[in-house]
Amino acid sequence: MSEALFEYLLRLGDNSLILGHRLSEWCGKAPILEEDIAISNVALDFIGQTQLWLGLAGEIEGAGRSADDLAMLRDAWDFRNILLVEQPNGNFGDTLMRQYLFDAWHVLLLQGLVESSNDRISAIAQKIVKEVQYHIERSRDLVIRLGDGTPESHDKMQSALDRFWPYVGEMFIVDTVEQHLIDDGIIPDTSALRGAFDAEIAATFDAATLTLPNSSFAHQGGKSGTRHSEHLGHLLTQMQWLQRAYPGATW
Amino acid sequence: MSEALFEYLLRLGDNSLILGHRLSEWCGKAPILEEDIAISNVALDFIGQTQLWLGLAGEIEGAGRSADDLAMLRDAWDFRNILLVEQPNGNFGDTLMRQYLFDAWHVLLLQGLVESSNDRISAIAQKIVKEVQYHIERSRDLVIRLGDGTPESHDKMQSALDRFWPYVGEMFIVDTVEQHLIDDGIIPDTSALRGAFDAEIAATFDAATLTLPNSSFAHQGGKSGTRHSEHLGHLLTQMQWLQRAYPGATW
Repeated sequence: MSEALFEYLLRLGDNSLILGHRLSEWCGKAPILEEDIAISNVALDFIGQTQLWLGLAGEIEGAGRSADDLAMLRDAWDFRNILLVEQPNGNFGDTLMRQYLFDAWHVLLLQGLVESSNDRISAIAQKIVKEVQYHIERSRDLVIRLGDGTPESHDKMQSALDRFWPYVGEMFIVDTVEQHLIDDGIIPDTSALRGAFDAEIAATFDAATLTLPNSSFAHQGGKSGTRHSEHLGHLLTQMQWLQRAYPGATW
Repeated sequence: MSEALFEYLLRLGDNSLILGHRLSEWCGKAPILEEDIAISNVALDFIGQTQLWLGLAGEIEGAGRSADDLAMLRDAWDFRNILLVEQPNGNFGDTLMRQYLFDAWHVLLLQGLVESSNDRISAIAQKIVKEVQYHIERSRDLVIRLGDGTPESHDKMQSALDRFWPYVGEMFIVDTVEQHLIDDGIIPDTSALRGAFDAEIAATFDAATLTLPNSSFAHQGGKSGTRHSEHLGHLLTQMQWLQRAYPGATW
């Protein structure tokens, strides 16, 4: 049980770590100042969530690894984030679409985790779910404004949706790791969240005049760690540089 | 004297190391197969040159550092390459323009180093100058074909020349490190190579229907190590990843 729980906490923590790092890549480069500050703040939210999830993962593992150790000293094959979050930022519309698809799932997942039979997980989820509700309000609003904007912004958002759609399915896959935890009431049944997710995005994409791709193909291998994309390794070379070059450095 | 010589050998070795790494980034991605193989071979030539120059630098330093140590375990501020070679690849035309400007200087420098009063340096230069003569034949030919090609290829090559021109001046600066070595006949007077360089590129750009920018502004700080561009640090995170994450790894 503790092994499955450790694996699952890595999934939660690695999702927020990798997505948070991706968003931080926009810092100083977003199209307008307000968005630059907003996206950097969201990035910080995710890094904060990482601290909580990976901190608990380290406790559960019981091998003395801190959240920082887990974040900075693992290599690509030990990461358990979904493939969606490691995809490159692309243009600002791409980043917002990736964010909205993640947020729409993330808020449902956290609402489920609030009901966890594990007190620690429930407490963390209660803390996080509030900021995640803000995340989706923001990303939903921007997806609608840009989708239902100029012809150029519409086309970019449609391209972004087409690009990231094949990464949605992985979020709803229940494997043996998750099934154990579902059976014990520790996590919600992810596959059962799909209905609410589909309703959420249908309303948003309708308002955004965007068309859902007619495909259910789903890339997978990220959260199981069996097949990450090449992008993750490149991201880690940047993210982990300081601890790799100067092991144990603190400030 | 040995301190100036060590510094200068770092300049030679770091130029070929960083440019070789940049060229290797094209491996598998160049526009056509023949060019992909050619550019990867040129990259390998530069890595081979690095082995020779940094190997000798390590001997001169006398602190037990190998060429690999110098390449993989220094941080950005200890690199002594010129700023030109650390600039990002851009499009294929950008890469060829950067290459031609470097080659046109490099071949003259090596012809001078063949005459070095230092036997070791002269021997290495004799070995390298042959492949560098091939490099410039190739890059000159491609710059002419693309400059004097379609309107689109012409415009891209002119943009590339405009972009990299401010990085040419640094190659010809003689500072105290180099003056010591010039005085002892160990290296040629770099500033005296400018005439032959200007004649070479004038003929090429004339045939390529490209216009030299009317500016003598020169970025500097690369070979002195005082001011590298942000790009170098990002390059090092990729290039040094393996030795940083797995210190001492061999194969």
